[in-house]
Amino acid sequence: MSLLIRHAKVLRILPGPQTRVLNEQDVRIEGARIASVEPASDNPAPADEVLDARGMLLMPGLINSHSHVPMVIFRGLAEDVSLEKWFNEYMWPLESNLQEEDVYWGMLLGLAEMIEAGVTCVADHYFFMDRAAEAVQQAGTRAALGWAVFGNQGIEALDRTAQFCRRWNGAANGRITTWMAPHAPYTCDDDFLGAARDRADELGVGIHIHVAETRDQTAAHVKKRGVTPIRLLDDLGLLRLPSLLAHAVGATEEDIRLLADRPAAVAHCPKTYLKLAMGIAPVVAMRKAGVTVGLGTDGAVSNNTLDVWESLRLMAMTQKQATGAAENMTLAESLEIATRGSARAVGLGDRIGTVEPGYLADLILVDLGGPHHQPLHSVPASLVYAARASDVQTVIINGRVIMRDRRLLTLDKAEIIRQVSRSLERLSRRVPASRIQVYAP
Amino acid sequence: MSLLIRHAKVLRILPGPQTRVLNEQDVRIEGARIASVEPASDNPAPADEVLDARGMLLMPGLINSHSHVPMVIFRGLAEDVSLEKWFNEYMWPLESNLQEEDVYWGMLLGLAEMIEAGVTCVADHYFFMDRAAEAVQQAGTRAALGWAVFGNQGIEALDRTAQFCRRWNGAANGRITTWMAPHAPYTCDDDFLGAARDRADELGVGIHIHVAETRDQTAAHVKKRGVTPIRLLDDLGLLRLPSLLAHAVGATEEDIRLLADRPAAVAHCPKTYLKLAMGIAPVVAMRKAGVTVGLGTDGAVSNNTLDVWESLRLMAMTQKQATGAAENMTLAESLEIATRGSARAVGLGDRIGTVEPGYLADLILVDLGGPHHQPLHSVPASLVYAARASDVQTVIINGRVIMRDRRLLTLDKAEIIRQVSRSLERLSRRVPASRIQVYAP
Repeated sequence: MSLLIRHAKVLRILPGPQTRVLNEQDVRIEGARIASVEPASDNPAPADEVLDARGMLLMPGLINSHSHVPMVIFRGLAEDVSLEKWFNEYMWPLESNLQEEDVYWGMLLGLAEMIEAGVTCVADHYFFMDRAAEAVQQAGTRAALGWAVFGNQGIEALDRTAQFCRRWNGAANGRITTWMAPHAPYTCDDDFLGAARDRADELGVGIHIHVAETRDQTAAHVKKRGVTPIRLLDDLGLLRLPSLLAHAVGATEEDIRLLADRPAAVAHCPKTYLKLAMGIAPVVAMRKAGVTVGLGTDGAVSNNTLDVWESLRLMAMTQKQATGAAENMTLAESLEIATRGSARAVGLGDRIGTVEPGYLADLILVDLGGPHHQPLHSVPASLVYAARASDVQTVIINGRVIMRDRRLLTLDKAEIIRQVSRSLERLSRRVPASRIQVYAP
Repeated sequence: MSLLIRHAKVLRILPGPQTRVLNEQDVRIEGARIASVEPASDNPAPADEVLDARGMLLMPGLINSHSHVPMVIFRGLAEDVSLEKWFNEYMWPLESNLQEEDVYWGMLLGLAEMIEAGVTCVADHYFFMDRAAEAVQQAGTRAALGWAVFGNQGIEALDRTAQFCRRWNGAANGRITTWMAPHAPYTCDDDFLGAARDRADELGVGIHIHVAETRDQTAAHVKKRGVTPIRLLDDLGLLRLPSLLAHAVGATEEDIRLLADRPAAVAHCPKTYLKLAMGIAPVVAMRKAGVTVGLGTDGAVSNNTLDVWESLRLMAMTQKQATGAAENMTLAESLEIATRGSARAVGLGDRIGTVEPGYLADLILVDLGGPHHQPLHSVPASLVYAARASDVQTVIINGRVIMRDRRLLTLDKAEIIRQVSRSLERLSRRVPASRIQVYAP
């Protein structure tokens, strides 16, 4: 199959980082990959499918580098509460109601939401992940999946998650990759974390884990263990493997130096940090030290949506605010993090995140013609500060058109919403005594 | 003319603040006002126009309580720069290119953007405001307009802005109200501010002014004058009149106590504060003291859009973060600020901001059926944390349908964009030496 996108503006992120917008380009896709990006021709070679992208911007699909997608089923159920209450009185009691079917339909609902918002790839960390993988297979999206596991579930549970990794790594024409996904240092003891590391090592996969979610968490860990949680992960050998660390809001300067020396990346999810008053992650310092940073949404119970445009904008703004310097986190750097940065974070830096020949064709067409973008003095400014999820018109993943003119081609949205709504009452029940875990870092 | 909206969910903000969602309501509008809100009837009395609102939420139109709407023409031209550079090297040089026609077309473009985002009223503060008023008249929206003026333009210029107030107050079937609009204490001397107060007093209008935009500004003012800029406005008698104070990020505890005793309101525009690293306004403390707070977007050169949904969300999140308590700025309080709070702030608290009989029918229908709202466990959570401008389907102002199913009925969007684009090159020229003002507070 070949696909030709005609007359597009193309967003190019250059090292530096700098941005360039190439006008009037024809982009040819052969199979799953970008074959060429060239000035528009009057007589292009034929293709199986042609998209007219006049007036649109072609850019890499957005990547959600940390989420718990099926949690959309609990959206809006834990508002205006502290982090501790959020875990102990809301999230973990709610999840004691969780059934395999919920994960399947929740994953489909979240994938529909993300496709409509131009998100082509997600690093997801949740339960019953075989069902999540089925949903990804069906939706036609890309995903790096990890089956979340707590230390008190025991080594057998860990082994089941390793079997999941083996079963699905490289599946769905290579669209699915896998990680080991122990929950966090405060819910997994050292032996368990070491065992997770061994499984990942044997399987040749990375590790996706929560760590240093707040400065208080770091301080409590130092008091208990004498080292920061990030240092502990390194001492246990986890950071020798490619690892994706969710949050790291409480990373110390020493932690940041350490991460810069390891094949580790940080998934940054600013909406959760704001809503739960968790502090602001030191992203400017991380980037300066050379740490890879990607953007994520986290789950929809702390974010409420899976909108990576919003993560992008919040990152740029909160970093300016936190460092007291509006010159920090420029348009170009923000867009670099949202594209190449997130691609590296999810372990696919050599395959996605840029509109260049040889890369996989995970691409979106964005309409910048709405009044909220006009007049279009600056495409980068519009993308970071004015774009809405609803501006995404067309989504291509692995060379295949998944949404065209805002119509989903792989999923039946009405049926998915109907299925999720059937469980509304059961899902909103929560019995604090039956929580699946306790937050006491 | 009568209008009947059938089978809507209705958002009701109660004192406390509490929110209630009334299901299956019929809302009848007679002329410009809401006549009744009642459980849906099978055989309602006939009406000239009927809207089926099944599956939609009916709520008060959003109010933008501080903006410079025509600045949309410079959108994206001043990025990643400090507040001082933003004024001295970008905004004020750019505005030396400003022509009357730019204000007219810019205002129309911004009104189109706001109608599409469900914003039914704006308190605007800009130049050549006769042209802005013509645009409002044409668009069918509501506006509280002030002609911005600097001290160095002299008393004659102030008098011209007073004549504008007289000319337009109550115009367009009462949709337009006016204010005196001296720019700020740091650009207007005491005599000028006193003269503005006298003109407002004679005309029976309020005052819309920028004040205490950052803590540094407050500190510089205290050093120069011995009092805070808010105290100065009070000493000069401006706060005896209804006044709308933009920003007040640098309000001290004493300023807040003072404001609570005056007919003054604060317009809160959090996106500007984040983007320009200006600090976080003490909104939680203001509200606790009893100060009226409304939401604004500010101009599109600091915000990039005129999206009040985003202001609402950013206010809730940054207040949680700044106070270190996720329990602060609840859903209900945030929605109260966005509706009744903003209505009081723009001087229309007895006329708009709630869906109740007797109030003016400035109303919007919001589609909460998209995947980013599903399953709909909580309407308030969806409005504050998941709604997008593009979810607004239908907009009613003063009893008249202005947008139906996302189609603008009063404005020709393509023509407006064409007109604004014609000036793209001229508008983006800037000659720092020709700036209209200097920022040196």
